[in-house]
Amino acid sequence: MSYSVAVAGASGYAGGELLRLLAQHPELDVRTATAFTNAGERVTSVHPHLASYSGMTFAKTEAEQLRGHDVVFFALPHGASGALSAELAADGADTVLADCGADHRLESTDDWADYYGSEFAGTWTYGLPELVLADGGRQRELLRGAREIAVPGCNVTAVTLALAPAINAGLVEAADLTAVLAVGPSGAGKKASTTLLGAELMGSANPYGTDGGHRHNPEIRQNLRRAGGRPVTLAFTPVLVPMARGILATTTAKLASGAALDDLRAAYERVYGDERFVDLLPAGEWPRTGDVTGSNRAAIGIGVDERARRLVAVSAIDNLGKGTAGAAIQSVNLALGLDETRGLPIDGVAP
Amino acid sequence: MSYSVAVAGASGYAGGELLRLLAQHPELDVRTATAFTNAGERVTSVHPHLASYSGMTFAKTEAEQLRGHDVVFFALPHGASGALSAELAADGADTVLADCGADHRLESTDDWADYYGSEFAGTWTYGLPELVLADGGRQRELLRGAREIAVPGCNVTAVTLALAPAINAGLVEAADLTAVLAVGPSGAGKKASTTLLGAELMGSANPYGTDGGHRHNPEIRQNLRRAGGRPVTLAFTPVLVPMARGILATTTAKLASGAALDDLRAAYERVYGDERFVDLLPAGEWPRTGDVTGSNRAAIGIGVDERARRLVAVSAIDNLGKGTAGAAIQSVNLALGLDETRGLPIDGVAP
Amino acid sequence: MSYSVAVAGASGYAGGELLRLLAQHPELDVRTATAFTNAGERVTSVHPHLASYSGMTFAKTEAEQLRGHDVVFFALPHGASGALSAELAADGADTVLADCGADHRLESTDDWADYYGSEFAGTWTYGLPELVLADGGRQRELLRGAREIAVPGCNVTAVTLALAPAINAGLVEAADLTAVLAVGPSGAGKKASTTLLGAELMGSANPYGTDGGHRHNPEIRQNLRRAGGRPVTLAFTPVLVPMARGILATTTAKLASGAALDDLRAAYERVYGDERFVDLLPAGEWPRTGDVTGSNRAAIGIGVDERARRLVAVSAIDNLGKGTAGAAIQSVNLALGLDETRGLPIDGVAP
Amino acid sequence: MSYSVAVAGASGYAGGELLRLLAQHPELDVRTATAFTNAGERVTSVHPHLASYSGMTFAKTEAEQLRGHDVVFFALPHGASGALSAELAADGADTVLADCGADHRLESTDDWADYYGSEFAGTWTYGLPELVLADGGRQRELLRGAREIAVPGCNVTAVTLALAPAINAGLVEAADLTAVLAVGPSGAGKKASTTLLGAELMGSANPYGTDGGHRHNPEIRQNLRRAGGRPVTLAFTPVLVPMARGILATTTAKLASGAALDDLRAAYERVYGDERFVDLLPAGEWPRTGDVTGSNRAAIGIGVDERARRLVAVSAIDNLGKGTAGAAIQSVNLALGLDETRGLPIDGVAP
Repeated sequence: MSYSVAVAGASGYAGGELLRLLAQHPELDVRTATAFTNAGERVTSVHPHLASYSGMTFAKTEAEQLRGHDVVFFALPHGASGALSAELAADGADTVLADCGADHRLESTDDWADYYGSEFAGTWTYGLPELVLADGGRQRELLRGAREIAVPGCNVTAVTLALAPAINAGLVEAADLTAVLAVGPSGAGKKASTTLLGAELMGSANPYGTDGGHRHNPEIRQNLRRAGGRPVTLAFTPVLVPMARGILATTTAKLASGAALDDLRAAYERVYGDERFVDLLPAGEWPRTGDVTGSNRAAIGIGVDERARRLVAVSAIDNLGKGTAGAAIQSVNLALGLDETRGLPIDGVAP
Repeated sequence: MSYSVAVAGASGYAGGELLRLLAQHPELDVRTATAFTNAGERVTSVHPHLASYSGMTFAKTEAEQLRGHDVVFFALPHGASGALSAELAADGADTVLADCGADHRLESTDDWADYYGSEFAGTWTYGLPELVLADGGRQRELLRGAREIAVPGCNVTAVTLALAPAINAGLVEAADLTAVLAVGPSGAGKKASTTLLGAELMGSANPYGTDGGHRHNPEIRQNLRRAGGRPVTLAFTPVLVPMARGILATTTAKLASGAALDDLRAAYERVYGDERFVDLLPAGEWPRTGDVTGSNRAAIGIGVDERARRLVAVSAIDNLGKGTAGAAIQSVNLALGLDETRGLPIDGVAP
Repeated sequence: MSYSVAVAGASGYAGGELLRLLAQHPELDVRTATAFTNAGERVTSVHPHLASYSGMTFAKTEAEQLRGHDVVFFALPHGASGALSAELAADGADTVLADCGADHRLESTDDWADYYGSEFAGTWTYGLPELVLADGGRQRELLRGAREIAVPGCNVTAVTLALAPAINAGLVEAADLTAVLAVGPSGAGKKASTTLLGAELMGSANPYGTDGGHRHNPEIRQNLRRAGGRPVTLAFTPVLVPMARGILATTTAKLASGAALDDLRAAYERVYGDERFVDLLPAGEWPRTGDVTGSNRAAIGIGVDERARRLVAVSAIDNLGKGTAGAAIQSVNLALGLDETRGLPIDGVAP
Repeated sequence: MSYSVAVAGASGYAGGELLRLLAQHPELDVRTATAFTNAGERVTSVHPHLASYSGMTFAKTEAEQLRGHDVVFFALPHGASGALSAELAADGADTVLADCGADHRLESTDDWADYYGSEFAGTWTYGLPELVLADGGRQRELLRGAREIAVPGCNVTAVTLALAPAINAGLVEAADLTAVLAVGPSGAGKKASTTLLGAELMGSANPYGTDGGHRHNPEIRQNLRRAGGRPVTLAFTPVLVPMARGILATTTAKLASGAALDDLRAAYERVYGDERFVDLLPAGEWPRTGDVTGSNRAAIGIGVDERARRLVAVSAIDNLGKGTAGAAIQSVNLALGLDETRGLPIDGVAP
């Protein structure tokens, strides 16, 4: 069976990656791609890499164009999906909506008010199937049959996957987590900004925590609280480095009394051993972002610094793949009752 | 139907890309991957990006291991495929051999002696299906049913595709061609060399013509002679630039008397209009290597500098994709009678 | 003796490099740095690398602020220096003006009309001291005592230095030149543009000839005509590559009948042998842009492709150094009667 | 007065940077540059960026060549300086020795045994003048008149400068420090290794902690213990990112009870307010490595994550500048009684 798909905001980086991955999906069929300023242009003039879309042009991003599809992906600036999804919901159709923006990720209205300030748009089902929950279940169960999906932020996914098993198992102290991320600038979107110019970024590592960075903090804490059943605190610092894509999250946590590397490895294997899109690397191997480029895979390495008594857990994802578009498709697969891995690559494009 | 495949020299960059692309091929089934120094190691310890090969280890590169497959790809250092292919041929099996090395590309023993010096290993069917021939045919016809395939050099493919239609149509002077290539270092292979260190290459553009570069010259001339029916001369300069993959070939040629851009565009459309893996870009658009990363696609843009009366034809390929592994698989598809496009991506991974 | 200096447009890349180099100049003393939108901000908030300017703020770019200095450097968008320099000239002061923009480079009003279209602003003394003239002299003689200096475009300098000696000696045919440039994006300025985003440029080589590129063509032809005494034609293609700074110009020219590499080498040595800022590399060595980063030096390598009968001359410069700010200071040194090399580095920052 | 200088191991990255910086030093005069395999070659054939050394060739690295200079810098592989310095010391000359290798940095023979295993070579005066000591003094006092100087490791300098003031002031808990470093590959030296190939590093962020990384840990702890007067523990993870040079150290520490950002800022200003080579950035600004490229400057930004009650202190240095060669020259300036800033740049080369 084939499902008709619309991608709203398809001219940006996240939208382009949705189109790229969906072109390989046997059951999801992109009928409509919309844009704001690029409406009316050929898809291949904006995304010359997407030869599969030769002949398609961008429609205007408006409810009229998005209506009537089985699945609608939103890859819009934060704040833009609310009105559109309300209009679509008013039709009473059984459409699956997957929002790659931040609008529907947080559960706490207080967190939303603290970090965003605008009107709270409601919480949708969180699109991170591999998230382990305090009761031992997984988030994927909640995604089966879901109709409104909030796709996680890319930095959030990297940190959550790195730390959740340790938190879940109670092997680290939840009150003292740190995460430093090396991130590529495609995660900041395709917006004309001197801060993101090639000349500014090449040959330099630039902290990027002051605006978008901190907004990811409550979402991470929300995830880890769900994984461990109690609040966590986290110091979180993203750093832009000169690569177009990729996130390497280096996280640390204080070991709980008596916890040892073997316990941790067992906990991570318990959580990720059967996951198709999360690879726990053998002891002594560490993930590289280049190895997950273009894929929906996360690679995770763990170690213990015995002197410091801290867990060091490092995760690598493609911010546009498992970090955004891949996660959206994976969640939609679950929502539609398809095989969760349908149409999603696990091999990275390296070197 | 499924064909059993061995990849010899699978621990290098070209071999890794063969494995990556073959994992998506519905009819080609990799049973054996061999290596020299990495024999016995897990494929994923050498190629952590190839999660599809989890559980496979490298066999030793020797005839014994390669025997008994329907298809054998050689991704070996120059000079290494001769003895192995002789051993395999001695079995009398109907194996398809595709050599990604230089050993069997040249037709002229003089050229071979001039540029390589070692013993001439014989000429195999040239694996560039889109090459237009002087008689109006295409190289693909010769590849149908072939059993020994010489995969073109990556720089050669980029320059050949950019210039062949103009040469074929007689719209440029064959005696005065130039090509300058911006190339990523993966084309130079995974060998420990201080010249190829990240610290040497990042932040710098480095000419790279003195050794490997010139060896590509006779192969390009051979192709263009076949396209135009008469000898050509070419000044050819590759430049290493700081990107892992990709070749951008900027070629120029003196316009034949009376030739105009419209004639050229018509000629390129005639040659490439029906090609699935060669995109002629609309007037005013130029190819970028990032847009073909990971794909088997070449993108080509052409223009005319009226004052200088020169054609400027620019092509972009992924050196490991259409430049090597993709071309090998495309040619093997033809050799086996499969759909030529089987298992080969046309979308690039961008940004 | 110390000269007071103002830099107009000091918040951009060219202006920042002027400030950086001038901080090391023993006789030139920056009293004023101006900007448009950044007026009033600390210099170090816009240029955090310029610790030497701690405590200075940008003044407004207007004649009032620039008046009363011995030297004024313009690092403004094209078209902006005309009115300002007219206001300053009206004072009757003996100020040295050096314009890093294009406004005063061309001699031909026709060329100006063809490529720019706006009102012709007049021709200033051309700031490329090493340019060899048809009569055997050098451009530097014209710069001694000059009061209005047109600093060459960076791409122009790279191509001119690579080809001028061969043209001057009549060893190549002037009618058939080609140049392909690998350029870093800082040459395109610090302007918010999605085309210049890090995510677009990293991992990709992108032709960049359609706008700014071609405007450099008449300036190159003007230089080479002055070097050789007759008109030249040139096909010129710049390519953006992933490095913040640097230009590698690969130029070719058809050898004149009978010309040989030895003749060419002798010609280049005659022209550059005594130049402090132009290095002719030994036979078999080729320049790399990383080796001239941050310096006022050009490195040049030459070779002959005997089969193609073409000269290949490759030059490397830092687009902001010898390509812009260094050339401006070198020319001002000459204008003021100072040692031409005063305050200018010859060592690059590598790796 | 002028001092004669020899640089042992001048063909590597650290040695090249010593030569580059020393060329600008008014009192230090490089008479001899030695190498192992490159002995006999022109300096400019190995370091084409060092035009200042045109005409000089590398001598052999042996005591005979190094003898008779006022200052000898060692930029050798770990373990190589011991025998050479013993031979030189045997002469009884008053030579100043500065070792950029690890051999003489550690005070504890136990630490040495744990992390290196070879014979302990003795402790030299530590070359980080800005290190604040528990008694309120600075390390620079110990360097005045020193004759044997151990230049700190580059990663160590970045982490030490970021955390020492907070430790010194007792505003953070010494037992729970973390540091994640984004580092360029030039810090790993100019050695042929497939791990450091451009193709492996470009487009990827790769953890690099398993070998060299951990060896820096005891040196950092030694420094911070001297700063705070009590032992510290630290989880330390370096990550290779695609830039030739630079270290961005993101460090965190748990705030001591009652400590606030104002206290911390006051402490950092007390320690660094008068330092010429350490810049404490204004509130809300964070350092970028590109801004210190080529300089001897460290830039430091601090903030507090109030929810997590952790200090986040980020430092940026050039690993070859303030991280190695600059620190060596700065320390030698002190040893010789020269102005500490002599010959050392504070402006970075950006963009």
